[in-house]
Amino acid sequence: MRWLRSYNASSLAGDATAGLIVTVMLIPQSLAYAMLAGLPPQAGLYASILPLVAYAALGSSTTLAVGPVAVISLMTAAALAPLAPAGSPEYAAAAVLLAFLSGLFLLAFAALRLGFIAQFLSHPVIAGFISGSAILIVLGQLKHVVGNAPTTAIGLGTIAFLAAARAWVPGLAGKLAPMAAIIVATALTTLFGFDVKVVGSVPQGLPRLVLPETKWLAELWMPALLISLVGFVESVSVARSLGARRGERIAPNRELAGLGAANVASALSGGFPVTGGFARSVVNFDAGARTPLAGVISAALMALALAGLTGLLHSLPHAVLAATIIIAVSSLIDWHALRETWRYDRADAAAFLATTAGVLALGVERGVLAGVAISLGMIVWRASRPHIAVLGRVPGTEHFRNVKRHTVETRPELLVVRVDESLFFANAAAVREEVERLAAAEPPLQRVLLVLSAVNHIDATALAMLDELERELAARGVSLCLAEVKGPVMDRLARTELGARMKERVYLSTHQAFQA
Amino acid sequence: MRWLRSYNASSLAGDATAGLIVTVMLIPQSLAYAMLAGLPPQAGLYASILPLVAYAALGSSTTLAVGPVAVISLMTAAALAPLAPAGSPEYAAAAVLLAFLSGLFLLAFAALRLGFIAQFLSHPVIAGFISGSAILIVLGQLKHVVGNAPTTAIGLGTIAFLAAARAWVPGLAGKLAPMAAIIVATALTTLFGFDVKVVGSVPQGLPRLVLPETKWLAELWMPALLISLVGFVESVSVARSLGARRGERIAPNRELAGLGAANVASALSGGFPVTGGFARSVVNFDAGARTPLAGVISAALMALALAGLTGLLHSLPHAVLAATIIIAVSSLIDWHALRETWRYDRADAAAFLATTAGVLALGVERGVLAGVAISLGMIVWRASRPHIAVLGRVPGTEHFRNVKRHTVETRPELLVVRVDESLFFANAAAVREEVERLAAAEPPLQRVLLVLSAVNHIDATALAMLDELERELAARGVSLCLAEVKGPVMDRLARTELGARMKERVYLSTHQAFQA
Repeated sequence: MRWLRSYNASSLAGDATAGLIVTVMLIPQSLAYAMLAGLPPQAGLYASILPLVAYAALGSSTTLAVGPVAVISLMTAAALAPLAPAGSPEYAAAAVLLAFLSGLFLLAFAALRLGFIAQFLSHPVIAGFISGSAILIVLGQLKHVVGNAPTTAIGLGTIAFLAAARAWVPGLAGKLAPMAAIIVATALTTLFGFDVKVVGSVPQGLPRLVLPETKWLAELWMPALLISLVGFVESVSVARSLGARRGERIAPNRELAGLGAANVASALSGGFPVTGGFARSVVNFDAGARTPLAGVISAALMALALAGLTGLLHSLPHAVLAATIIIAVSSLIDWHALRETWRYDRADAAAFLATTAGVLALGVERGVLAGVAISLGMIVWRASRPHIAVLGRVPGTEHFRNVKRHTVETRPELLVVRVDESLFFANAAAVREEVERLAAAEPPLQRVLLVLSAVNHIDATALAMLDELERELAARGVSLCLAEVKGPVMDRLARTELGARMKERVYLSTHQAFQA
Repeated sequence: MRWLRSYNASSLAGDATAGLIVTVMLIPQSLAYAMLAGLPPQAGLYASILPLVAYAALGSSTTLAVGPVAVISLMTAAALAPLAPAGSPEYAAAAVLLAFLSGLFLLAFAALRLGFIAQFLSHPVIAGFISGSAILIVLGQLKHVVGNAPTTAIGLGTIAFLAAARAWVPGLAGKLAPMAAIIVATALTTLFGFDVKVVGSVPQGLPRLVLPETKWLAELWMPALLISLVGFVESVSVARSLGARRGERIAPNRELAGLGAANVASALSGGFPVTGGFARSVVNFDAGARTPLAGVISAALMALALAGLTGLLHSLPHAVLAATIIIAVSSLIDWHALRETWRYDRADAAAFLATTAGVLALGVERGVLAGVAISLGMIVWRASRPHIAVLGRVPGTEHFRNVKRHTVETRPELLVVRVDESLFFANAAAVREEVERLAAAEPPLQRVLLVLSAVNHIDATALAMLDELERELAARGVSLCLAEVKGPVMDRLARTELGARMKERVYLSTHQAFQA
């Protein structure tokens, strides 16, 4: 909370404006995402007060807007659906426990300094997961915007209005469209008494503090873990991309703490899992938020709304909320990122599509696991394919370059191979096979020179590989030599049997080895 | 089977000697490992005929000795114990199915060319797994060598005899000790009628072909998968280390095919899962085996033994077999490898011990999974810690070297950073954090120069990271520059928005950037 000690009046104008505009977005979104999560509207409002204050106290981003978000609400619905009927008191109690457990996981990760785990999901996998979830959400909401004639009219009318506002009203003014739609639709429904499903009575007043019931602990710890992982990864990437715009560093472990506290606060207020949302955070940034005080101001305004205005929500049609969700999440289906990724890196685009397909085929929970598995698979795949270059001498110099890219001199009795990665068990076999393949193709070969300029470590498996490779080549009359072995690598190597055997065949530079 | 076409008489002497000596080892081991697997003695003999022929036809190693091995027999017992009482016909039928499924998995892996999977388990993890399994086996066999007085006398006497032979009889002669123990103990038991548990009647004659029953398909596919994985990894590492001694290349996909065919053959003969064993393969090599014909000769001798000599096995005490197992597997507890690994690489030694502990705590099946998880974790951990060096200029030259290792010139307004790995999602955050940390420590800093000489690929996540890093540094008045970007990396980069923005800040060499 360093920002609080150096707070000045010039920041207040920006924070207050941003806080107000975010609140105007947050009211419809919190009602809509509560509906998406299968919870009564007040749960969404409750999840939008204390969590914002908790994040402001512990988080590291100055602009992240915390609260209910679409993907986490979908995951909440998926986790709770098997346990109790949506809308029942048991269901709401389970949502509280889910938020509480997510918060505990996040706080535990913060204590264990596991902030680095966010990096083990690739961006395309995250984008693919969010796109797949968004498609599931749109499909799930369609039933709320079509029905009897008035429902369909209000639903499709609101979608048309919101889409038009998004297309033609640039900047912050366009962000107020959902609130405008709510006000107009509620007023018309109150006046004309349309035959549509409405929000109904929302209890007035601030949330009472509740303690989570532990009844469904066994069923909910796993979904809570997945929700905390997805919430953290999504939130950190939003915080990072906004932070980059103003030279602000995001500390992953403080983000874990901030989001953990926010979820515990949401649980205690009778809410459901929350995290940092993309759209509201961008608005917060664009509206001029300077410090986390903007979030505190939003929280205060939400509390005022809960204390006084809930009566006005009675005749708000569900179709309007569903239309709000559909328009909000349709921008999460990230065609642009997919197209860009496709142009830039086909493998990444394939991971994107595979994750989206995984979410659509397996559902949102197993979709996360599919995404994690795809990301792990990509790490392992990459680790097993080291970059290996055959080198030759640039004529008249002491420089050695890849024979594929440069005009260089080679000698038929000498094969010079550079491995551009540290040697360890996942790439040891690939290195050995490539060297064997290269060596087999050169009949008059007498020496293979391994250039280890890019090798910072050789693990025990790779050491055994080198040992076997040396023996195998020796049995075929070819001697294995080393060059440019880094100091720490040489120190370790010298202590081994292989190091002792090769002592006379380790050269300082590739050039020296080439001369010898 | 290329070896068959160029077969000559000079190889026959070596192959015949090796085949005979391996058979003399194989008879006691196949009886003992059948007992370890909970199967009647003939199952071990049956698993030592056709599988050897099948491997000789399809495998790629000239010296691998296939048949029942200790660790796979332990895994077989662990898989079958929940299904039927050991020794019952249902239990034997389940063993047949297990071998059949393992064979199918291996053949499927061969067809899919998945031979590279062996490299994703590190040597220390494999050694830790085998050591843990060996400890479990010794603990499990102790009950067979202690009991009434004659059992204890025979058991401990055999252990002492085998241990003495191992210590004092060098070379191949020592390998005949288990057979000697069997002959002496069986003769004495027959003569004096000791009150000990004996093998009993073993059906004479060759195995009849059986088809696997599919009753326990659901229970056994997972154990079969684990057995095929462990069997393959163990066998390939034996084949590789022997192959290296004579300049012979092992083709992992052909090994998969050979072991797959061996397991299917074992199932059809009423046996149980088999793989290439370490001790017998070394003996085969040392005794002069030149080609896979040595295995075929062993198979023929085993068939002769089954056809004529099973009557002699009646009074063979279980205690002798248990003593054989204890002595054989105690050499699998690889203290030497652990000590060497500890000296060479502490992280690898920790993985060794963690896997051993996993096997002892969780049992052999979940121990494999623990080993896989530890190996994957090591890959991910390594991928997330790229080597990053701050560079300075070697005075009077155009060379740039790590400031930690060399006396070099630096400039306060310029930070030169070299990342020694391709940039991708698992290390993108670490690179960013390290550059931010280094940049924060230098107040008069105006430029950060990233030297990408070791970067062969930048994936979409790392591209987004560079984009954000560039913006963040720019917001703080620091400009990000690139040098030594490789051709293919530059081609991709040029197509992106970041590439367009940084166009003027990409230098061919670090030296040019340093001058500018």
